[in-house]
Amino acid sequence: MKKNDPLVLPGERLDDLIIGGLKIIQHPQEFCFTLDAVLLAQFATVKAQTSAVDLGTGTGAVALLLAARGATVTGVELTQQVAAMFERSIRLNKLEQTVRSVCYDIRKIAEIMPAGQASLVVANPPYRPVGQGRINPQLNVASARHELTLNLAEVVAAAGYLLKYRGRFAMVHLPERLTDVLTTMRQAGIEPKRLRLVHPKRHKPPNILLVEGVRGANSGLDVLPPLYIYEADGEYSQEIMAYYVPNPAI
Amino acid sequence: MKKNDPLVLPGERLDDLIIGGLKIIQHPQEFCFTLDAVLLAQFATVKAQTSAVDLGTGTGAVALLLAARGATVTGVELTQQVAAMFERSIRLNKLEQTVRSVCYDIRKIAEIMPAGQASLVVANPPYRPVGQGRINPQLNVASARHELTLNLAEVVAAAGYLLKYRGRFAMVHLPERLTDVLTTMRQAGIEPKRLRLVHPKRHKPPNILLVEGVRGANSGLDVLPPLYIYEADGEYSQEIMAYYVPNPAI
Repeated sequence: MKKNDPLVLPGERLDDLIIGGLKIIQHPQEFCFTLDAVLLAQFATVKAQTSAVDLGTGTGAVALLLAARGATVTGVELTQQVAAMFERSIRLNKLEQTVRSVCYDIRKIAEIMPAGQASLVVANPPYRPVGQGRINPQLNVASARHELTLNLAEVVAAAGYLLKYRGRFAMVHLPERLTDVLTTMRQAGIEPKRLRLVHPKRHKPPNILLVEGVRGANSGLDVLPPLYIYEADGEYSQEIMAYYVPNPAI
Repeated sequence: MKKNDPLVLPGERLDDLIIGGLKIIQHPQEFCFTLDAVLLAQFATVKAQTSAVDLGTGTGAVALLLAARGATVTGVELTQQVAAMFERSIRLNKLEQTVRSVCYDIRKIAEIMPAGQASLVVANPPYRPVGQGRINPQLNVASARHELTLNLAEVVAAAGYLLKYRGRFAMVHLPERLTDVLTTMRQAGIEPKRLRLVHPKRHKPPNILLVEGVRGANSGLDVLPPLYIYEADGEYSQEIMAYYVPNPAI
């Protein structure tokens, strides 16, 4: 860990993404990435020459992880300070050739990016409508959790604009908003094709949903087997472990 | 088993619903009830004085099972011969006071039933759109499987018509149609509130979905833990066994 790397500013922290030897610059008082970002980056379909856009990239965890899977990625983030951290993380990981940080309002994405070019759009958007639960006093953290600066319809509309025909949109969200998620995607012309529910452990209800849609596809949803985070013994499940150690010695 | 019961006509069969000591008259060449009916009847919320309507009741398995849970039930079935079998099953089970067989087209339900009276509507409707998969040459069986005489939007519209404000609609369907199910319910003013995915066994994708919505409710879906039909050893899971033996000796 290069804790004294000149790219890491005072007060910031250099965290390990573990996967692909990636590092990420974060600030303990800002929104830091969660397992949700890792799940999304692993869930999204990445093919050869995938040209991806990460909407609301934050410190860039999903964008960096998609790059590790071979995609070219543009991460769009509203908050200047956070986008700057992401930009330094790109340099720190020497990913300037494949990852790009853009600071802009996703609701106005058409002002700076062309329509129908992306083969993949991903989003780990704010989960909760305003008025549901306590708003974090730290504005950037609040914006990452509550739909203050971007709501579900806006993020899906931006994805629909950016995606080429047959391009894919992958998102992580809350199971309680499943109806909102599926109806909003269909309304935007992105038909839900893959759904995976993530459970903290067996016999527990899911607390995360992963969904992927295809722009212009016919209806017909493939609901995948449940993904469990932890085993009964409190250890990560084999599937989660495999994200971190792709070829474990058995 | 009263195989020679005068209510059972030649060619028909007297099957055991196992639960509540119920019997059901079926015909081997017609559509016979499946586990889906049992799952739906167990999943639906039944409270004191529930007044239920079963849309497309067939031989009446769901209606009879709801009666065993304490509901008053009207089962509506299009096919005269099948509705007649259901009517004889009601008499055979001595449930004339709580269960009623009505032979009518659900698409015209407003002609014979009042709006806003039911506290519960259930449906185990045909799962597949016409054009998807082989149509069974037996017309009644085909109508139970394919949307020949009743499609998803029509069954949900009938439920919306019948339900009182805050009344519940429970349905069993295919996971691949989850988007259709949730969007159609919301459009009809029945907000999805509970969803359960049913898996043949652990690590397998779900092959059945159970959903319950509430007329006039706010959004917010409770996704329940997965329901597994079989254990790894091929036996029914404890939860399924408990349907049949509510208080097993341990």
